[in-house]
Amino acid sequence: MAHHEFIPEGYHVTIGSHEPVLEVAPGDSISTTTVDARGRDENGQDVTPRGNPQTGPFYVTGAEPGDTLVVTLDELRPSRDWGFTGTRIAANVLEPGFVPPFDDDGEPAIWDVDVKAWTARLRTPEGPLCNIDLPLDPMVGCFGVAPPRQQAISTATSSTHGGNMDYRGFRQGVKVYLPVAVQGGLFHIGDGHAVQGDGEIVGTGIEISFDVRFTLDLVKGKEIGWPRAENEEFIMAVGNARPLDQAVQHASTEMLSYLDQDYGLDARTAHLLMGQCVEYDIGNIFDPAYTMVCKIRKDILKKLSA
Amino acid sequence: MAHHEFIPEGYHVTIGSHEPVLEVAPGDSISTTTVDARGRDENGQDVTPRGNPQTGPFYVTGAEPGDTLVVTLDELRPSRDWGFTGTRIAANVLEPGFVPPFDDDGEPAIWDVDVKAWTARLRTPEGPLCNIDLPLDPMVGCFGVAPPRQQAISTATSSTHGGNMDYRGFRQGVKVYLPVAVQGGLFHIGDGHAVQGDGEIVGTGIEISFDVRFTLDLVKGKEIGWPRAENEEFIMAVGNARPLDQAVQHASTEMLSYLDQDYGLDARTAHLLMGQCVEYDIGNIFDPAYTMVCKIRKDILKKLSA
Amino acid sequence: MAHHEFIPEGYHVTIGSHEPVLEVAPGDSISTTTVDARGRDENGQDVTPRGNPQTGPFYVTGAEPGDTLVVTLDELRPSRDWGFTGTRIAANVLEPGFVPPFDDDGEPAIWDVDVKAWTARLRTPEGPLCNIDLPLDPMVGCFGVAPPRQQAISTATSSTHGGNMDYRGFRQGVKVYLPVAVQGGLFHIGDGHAVQGDGEIVGTGIEISFDVRFTLDLVKGKEIGWPRAENEEFIMAVGNARPLDQAVQHASTEMLSYLDQDYGLDARTAHLLMGQCVEYDIGNIFDPAYTMVCKIRKDILKKLSA
Amino acid sequence: MAHHEFIPEGYHVTIGSHEPVLEVAPGDSISTTTVDARGRDENGQDVTPRGNPQTGPFYVTGAEPGDTLVVTLDELRPSRDWGFTGTRIAANVLEPGFVPPFDDDGEPAIWDVDVKAWTARLRTPEGPLCNIDLPLDPMVGCFGVAPPRQQAISTATSSTHGGNMDYRGFRQGVKVYLPVAVQGGLFHIGDGHAVQGDGEIVGTGIEISFDVRFTLDLVKGKEIGWPRAENEEFIMAVGNARPLDQAVQHASTEMLSYLDQDYGLDARTAHLLMGQCVEYDIGNIFDPAYTMVCKIRKDILKKLSA
Repeated sequence: MAHHEFIPEGYHVTIGSHEPVLEVAPGDSISTTTVDARGRDENGQDVTPRGNPQTGPFYVTGAEPGDTLVVTLDELRPSRDWGFTGTRIAANVLEPGFVPPFDDDGEPAIWDVDVKAWTARLRTPEGPLCNIDLPLDPMVGCFGVAPPRQQAISTATSSTHGGNMDYRGFRQGVKVYLPVAVQGGLFHIGDGHAVQGDGEIVGTGIEISFDVRFTLDLVKGKEIGWPRAENEEFIMAVGNARPLDQAVQHASTEMLSYLDQDYGLDARTAHLLMGQCVEYDIGNIFDPAYTMVCKIRKDILKKLSA
Repeated sequence: MAHHEFIPEGYHVTIGSHEPVLEVAPGDSISTTTVDARGRDENGQDVTPRGNPQTGPFYVTGAEPGDTLVVTLDELRPSRDWGFTGTRIAANVLEPGFVPPFDDDGEPAIWDVDVKAWTARLRTPEGPLCNIDLPLDPMVGCFGVAPPRQQAISTATSSTHGGNMDYRGFRQGVKVYLPVAVQGGLFHIGDGHAVQGDGEIVGTGIEISFDVRFTLDLVKGKEIGWPRAENEEFIMAVGNARPLDQAVQHASTEMLSYLDQDYGLDARTAHLLMGQCVEYDIGNIFDPAYTMVCKIRKDILKKLSA
Repeated sequence: MAHHEFIPEGYHVTIGSHEPVLEVAPGDSISTTTVDARGRDENGQDVTPRGNPQTGPFYVTGAEPGDTLVVTLDELRPSRDWGFTGTRIAANVLEPGFVPPFDDDGEPAIWDVDVKAWTARLRTPEGPLCNIDLPLDPMVGCFGVAPPRQQAISTATSSTHGGNMDYRGFRQGVKVYLPVAVQGGLFHIGDGHAVQGDGEIVGTGIEISFDVRFTLDLVKGKEIGWPRAENEEFIMAVGNARPLDQAVQHASTEMLSYLDQDYGLDARTAHLLMGQCVEYDIGNIFDPAYTMVCKIRKDILKKLSA
Repeated sequence: MAHHEFIPEGYHVTIGSHEPVLEVAPGDSISTTTVDARGRDENGQDVTPRGNPQTGPFYVTGAEPGDTLVVTLDELRPSRDWGFTGTRIAANVLEPGFVPPFDDDGEPAIWDVDVKAWTARLRTPEGPLCNIDLPLDPMVGCFGVAPPRQQAISTATSSTHGGNMDYRGFRQGVKVYLPVAVQGGLFHIGDGHAVQGDGEIVGTGIEISFDVRFTLDLVKGKEIGWPRAENEEFIMAVGNARPLDQAVQHASTEMLSYLDQDYGLDARTAHLLMGQCVEYDIGNIFDPAYTMVCKIRKDILKKLSA
């Protein structure tokens, strides 16, 4: 259960079987940093090309295809005093042909981020938003393990390995499960958001550099199909695909496996339960693969009789 | 502001320009009953063919195309002690080709509904669900106004006029806005659910007859494109279409109109705000048209400066 | 086998259980006229509101739910010397956010239609299209039978009953099969196009009034799920839905039924055959429901051994 | 204009920036071989793991990002006397929940391929297909250039770089244009089909090893967004994505660029022309990304006045 401090010297814009930067034992935790989506660090310096650059990958001793990597997001903390967002809802989120009736220069909006007050506020003072302090709700947009078959998957998108899911439920304290596909698992992480709406519909959250601390653990011999997660309230199964309908299919089917594997629920009970108790969150509806999350409340699961 | 007690003598399985059953003034409220999705009343008697039979339509004096009908769902109360649900997650919600590994006879499951204890419990005693009491959360699956151009739209589906949206946010206390397309508006209501999960993924909530009370009011000369709603916490815009991506487009674009019409928000501010604060709920992902709901918290809107 | 001349006195913009205009016996043929999509007749006079107005409905003696109506499109002939088209590819057919880099006034383009030369040419003389004579290929965009359950479905869209399929394979000589859902079948027809590209991507073909002649026949007791058709070369099954993926599902599954019902093909053979021999056409990708057509060559079917 | 004979010693199941196997000058042609989708060679020997293994990549001298690689498929010839196909239409192509009513062992069907007679016939003699000789129509399912940003994209799928498009129009004689994203372009090719239906709906064509000959050329400084192609009759633009609707968007928008770049057509003319003359083919509706092809007849383009 060692703790590692890691200072990144390079970043990746694909998630793949890159040379590991550090090997850790199952149960170890790591403190490190991530740059923002455009490759800028805690000082706002451009240190790497844009596109959700990833810190890592981290090699977990003993991780093999067929295992599950358990990532606990112990701490997610913005590491500078400003972030940026897109200013237009993505065209694919609005009616075809709808043209927003305003001109802007395409430049991102800058938000002041106050980690003491734990708020974000649009920097440009005028306008109806100038007095709105959004509470920070830091989350990590993109993380995952190396995919199978020598793929190197762009950090613009996501799949079974995780990736750019941009789900605001991936906040501090969440435990995420990822399907190990290569030796060592090779965990990558980046793309911190200080705040994000459902769907990441302007193409960004409040994009910012992060100090992160996370724990990597293993469940040997447990095979999962898609990322899963849990927090105090919910268990969650994640589907990444286009269109949303397909993301729903992946997430819902993975939830059936989750209820079977972890709760021993017979199939008919699982269907009946999900029918009346399931909840869905949209992760993103912006990236090449959209993300849907299928959730069940843990307090209901606790009441299931054996 | 009269109150009307109405006892239905017939039902409709389309929403259209049917003969009104009652004319009311704007601001009047109506107490009436609805049968369950299969046409059974508070005694469990088959009184009309299945398919979300609608009570109504109710004609609102002075309602004209281009107005908005305001429906406040004052009371939604199950009127008998049992409901039924589907037992299988719909094939379109699971991976193509996934076959649930259990046999059943296709018969719905029966749930005991206790309106005193305010819970529902699967009637069949055995199994892991037998001790689970789900809290009731009554909602109305299908309601709407007559659509334009002489259409009579099946109560299986939904569109701009409302219809079979199966959104569990349509619970007691919600105010819903519908676009009037014909003289009198012609409001229909039916398909009560005692409980429902997101998405109505087994094809039903806990389907049951209801005692309902609602108020019908008008905003003259206010034109909306899709159903809208508000409760204590949120304003909501609804999109009904397949696939979910298109439902998102309708709902998100309608929310922009909502913020413009009701909050006078300039377009750029609306995009920036939605980007970091929007939330989405899935209504249904079972019916011919799926339903997505785009929401913004009212406490944020209240902080907007003029 | 009577022949009827019918002069319409009114039109419908829904397909539904409207009062029949004429009752005919199975095998009878009818000569009549259709107005263009905007309700203009052979003289260019506005005679009815726009929106694919339908001539009919025609009641076929003895037609009952569970039968198949057989419509042979004996003659489809433009009845005036001009038509109109949209000028912009629909936003849903192009990349989200793509804005065509030209201004026009939204007015349709006028095309001269020469039924002697059998060509259409853009009326406005200048420009690269001014010497292009497109060969006429008349087809009917919208036709169908009354749907079940008292629905009156807008002629903007399509479903199992037919409707606004805008498939350019529905040209003269084709035999179309439609599922009868109400007594008499109630056949409607309208929306002639002198020419149309795949997909009707500018929202129109060359829209024009037609003289039409068609034969209505019945197959008693034969139940089909979706429209089917055949010509000299192909048998065809039609799916109408959004997105295209779902239209493909309807069409492909209906083709399996077609091969079973009409060719007695066992399921495994049908799958193997379709795998290597199937063809697909896009009907429309513009209307609320898109249309896909699944086809098999008849010469291959003829070689199947018994 | 050299000709190279190349004998592969290894294969790739991603398309990416792999070590080139041969450098050729623009205009050179190459004769080589491809294994079948499961990695079996002309003798039926397993020589590499399954999954559309690619021969190559071939480095073209002088190719740089921003250029277009021109691939002429000079010869595509099955190199053994049998191929295999799937036996079931993919679940995503049929109605959700439709279960084909036959059992098989999941083993592929074997087809005898006679390159002299130029036919394929199901090997198992019984059944209605036993006398059907399908004419060979060899095509290549998967080929492309290395994608940008260090991606290594699985040969199961496709994108702007080409990949597993499974379009039966990619037959002998076709000229394909691909967007160069890395130095040398890095052309990969594999996955030959002796025959294939539209959509590759059983997940395969008649999968077989090939002798191939192709010419690689460059258009310096010409940037395209998606694969394009032309044959004697058509120019074509290809879109790869899910759902089909999005593939249509990519293909149709790319066709507008094609008409602009290569034919100098003004935008309004291009829209008018495509509206009445466009054709679409489905490539595949099986792979993770579907493929749609947007086509225009060359004889129409020839008549355009300057």
